[in-house]
Amino acid sequence: MKLGHVIESQQFTLPMLVELFEVADQMERIIARGGTQDYQNKIMASLFYEHSTRTRFSFESAMYRLGGKVLSTERANTFSSVAAGETLEDTIRVVSSYADVIVLRHNEIGGAARAAAISTVPIVNAGDGKGGQHPTQALLDLYTIYKGVKTIEGVKVALVGNLTDGRTVRSLAYLLGKFERVKLYFVAPDSFQIKQDILDYLTKHNVWFARESNLKKILPEVDVVYSTRIEPELLTQRGERLETISQYFIDDTLLKLLPSHALVMHPLPRLHEISPTVDSNSRAVYFKQTKNGVLIRMALLASVLGY
Amino acid sequence: MKLGHVIESQQFTLPMLVELFEVADQMERIIARGGTQDYQNKIMASLFYEHSTRTRFSFESAMYRLGGKVLSTERANTFSSVAAGETLEDTIRVVSSYADVIVLRHNEIGGAARAAAISTVPIVNAGDGKGGQHPTQALLDLYTIYKGVKTIEGVKVALVGNLTDGRTVRSLAYLLGKFERVKLYFVAPDSFQIKQDILDYLTKHNVWFARESNLKKILPEVDVVYSTRIEPELLTQRGERLETISQYFIDDTLLKLLPSHALVMHPLPRLHEISPTVDSNSRAVYFKQTKNGVLIRMALLASVLGY
Amino acid sequence: MKLGHVIESQQFTLPMLVELFEVADQMERIIARGGTQDYQNKIMASLFYEHSTRTRFSFESAMYRLGGKVLSTERANTFSSVAAGETLEDTIRVVSSYADVIVLRHNEIGGAARAAAISTVPIVNAGDGKGGQHPTQALLDLYTIYKGVKTIEGVKVALVGNLTDGRTVRSLAYLLGKFERVKLYFVAPDSFQIKQDILDYLTKHNVWFARESNLKKILPEVDVVYSTRIEPELLTQRGERLETISQYFIDDTLLKLLPSHALVMHPLPRLHEISPTVDSNSRAVYFKQTKNGVLIRMALLASVLGY
Repeated sequence: MKLGHVIESQQFTLPMLVELFEVADQMERIIARGGTQDYQNKIMASLFYEHSTRTRFSFESAMYRLGGKVLSTERANTFSSVAAGETLEDTIRVVSSYADVIVLRHNEIGGAARAAAISTVPIVNAGDGKGGQHPTQALLDLYTIYKGVKTIEGVKVALVGNLTDGRTVRSLAYLLGKFERVKLYFVAPDSFQIKQDILDYLTKHNVWFARESNLKKILPEVDVVYSTRIEPELLTQRGERLETISQYFIDDTLLKLLPSHALVMHPLPRLHEISPTVDSNSRAVYFKQTKNGVLIRMALLASVLGY
Repeated sequence: MKLGHVIESQQFTLPMLVELFEVADQMERIIARGGTQDYQNKIMASLFYEHSTRTRFSFESAMYRLGGKVLSTERANTFSSVAAGETLEDTIRVVSSYADVIVLRHNEIGGAARAAAISTVPIVNAGDGKGGQHPTQALLDLYTIYKGVKTIEGVKVALVGNLTDGRTVRSLAYLLGKFERVKLYFVAPDSFQIKQDILDYLTKHNVWFARESNLKKILPEVDVVYSTRIEPELLTQRGERLETISQYFIDDTLLKLLPSHALVMHPLPRLHEISPTVDSNSRAVYFKQTKNGVLIRMALLASVLGY
Repeated sequence: MKLGHVIESQQFTLPMLVELFEVADQMERIIARGGTQDYQNKIMASLFYEHSTRTRFSFESAMYRLGGKVLSTERANTFSSVAAGETLEDTIRVVSSYADVIVLRHNEIGGAARAAAISTVPIVNAGDGKGGQHPTQALLDLYTIYKGVKTIEGVKVALVGNLTDGRTVRSLAYLLGKFERVKLYFVAPDSFQIKQDILDYLTKHNVWFARESNLKKILPEVDVVYSTRIEPELLTQRGERLETISQYFIDDTLLKLLPSHALVMHPLPRLHEISPTVDSNSRAVYFKQTKNGVLIRMALLASVLGY
């Protein structure tokens, strides 16, 4: 597989996902054997218009595991002070001269697509705007489900927390919707429920889904519970009671309701969504997600650079 | 050629420039063949007292293309908080222990020369102060002219925009003045014209020059038009009318006045100096300049590190 | 020697120090021979919660000299905005997925130990909190004494300046106290004298020490004078006269009082503690300390990564 740009979750077909996961498995074996220098002549540019040290480190670790080099900035806006006002397009053209692949975190929805339209090297979207896409996060989440549950077809997933604004959950829902017999439970207080555009997409693709507010009721049903943060200040703003949040707090008690094979996932950072006492449970895979993130990003970088 | 420090444009003799350009050509072939790891044991430090992600990336890309390693900071002033007050000299001595070459962007004129006086490893000046030098930019500009016009002797160049404060234009004028039969047109509103020190230098070296304010009149005469930005706020400050700036705006209409072999150059970032419609024209080489910048900096780094 | 975490000076036994210094000597020979790529598949993460470009560069230079790769941030707090409030423990777990060793500069005493308790990869403490530890600085200081005086047993060291708050001096005193017949002179104004915890430690280990305020009197007695900064604003705060500081200023006059074999050391940055005229004197080794810092950190990184 030779990928071009990586812009949104929807661009990945089932056969592409299968191949990507195979390459990620292979990357795990390469790391276990001590690594590779196959991409030592390649340069990746981390071009971040917003801070996200975690995402940046994950991509840079992936590039280093491939043997490559990394140009890095978390203040891409200093390429073009507000006074100078350089366009994103001009910046991308310039950085295309410096690197073989650009990992772009932009502050506006559609930033990655604009960059891809002009770039002479592959663009990988590392998040573009609130409510935009973060496809590599969705891919690593899907890969974690695949590795943990052994299959994605027929998987039952509870997506929990702030579903309205969460880029991660939205991108993951798009991806899961591509698989047969998947069941999605959107579990959130009313004012944090999933938006209509996602539901329309799922309906169009014949994906079963349900909206719920009661997590305890759903837990025994699912293979995966994917927890995300509801910011307390948003709760108040949207007229919900602060106590509401405690219903979604996954601790040892709630864990007992979950089937023994099921996975507890979280995109991190977590605050009060999952108790630290859950960390040592074999079903807790949120730190595995970060490991898988490196593998998936290695696979993506190798695919856009050519292998 | 084994270069010591790279401090100012004037230090380069004609034979040095010829050799530098040959090495840059060779670097282009090396990249095309997949790159090199020849300098894998060498460390470059990017020591920037001012942000300039673009210049930093260009140098770091060059060092990576050579196979080398990069230490990087855009906040070199945190080496020595204002309270601590460490001298530039002490900082340079310390960084000399960490790297094999130091790329220095300093905020004061003469910063690079002060660093070179004390450093045990080569210093490359990546810009020192407003109105100071930025020799590697001038070298890449000269290299772009050489590659585009095939010769520098007898070349006719229009330097346009803010010629009073532009570090780039000043350094380039010094370099062009070394070649036979060169003609320089300084095209700017009166309050942005080139300073007397450059004109004295050119007179002393018998270089033909003219000061103009009318770009349209000059365009048919030249092999190169080198555009730079006039900040709107400076226009007002210096008593010029804002409309003045539109005379220097290069669009498709002005492009028609330019000979078919001529080059349109700009140090970037651009704002309202050149229309995006010009970008696709074969004469527009401002994005080639950024590519050439990597080659020239590879050649310079290889020269100071030894090849 | 296979080290685990590097958290505090006290963890190093005499045999460990001897082996570490042998490895550092070997690293010097490796650099002289042109370097190594032995650790090219290893990744070090610089995780700095406080700026310290100097310390960061020293570690990153060491990792590069070993052939390794570096993930770097000086704003580790952006991993977890104050609003998000991710724990240090969660951050360390995540970064453990990205790197083979974590160099941690934390803003709280005990930060490194907390990280080590949870990390799946080695933690190297690069300073944790005011009055905490900075063991690698103490090790490089000890190594510099060892290389300069040829032995550490029986060495007489004057520690000068702000001994109350200086992390460096405190860590070095712990290390020196491990050697036979060492004599320590704590030279400072009363309100900047060494704290009782260090004196208790030395008494328990039968180390000779004296507290002094007169530097001139002590200089003829010692093998090493280790100068540190007293911040002028602290002098006033603690009721000392500003002129007091001049007694501790090492210039050519004071240098004459020092034995010809003795060393002048300083952790840097210096301000008004040592005259620049002293720099060229063969006894001034403060810039050698920075060189030795890279060697010691190479030895430490090789030890935790395995060699």
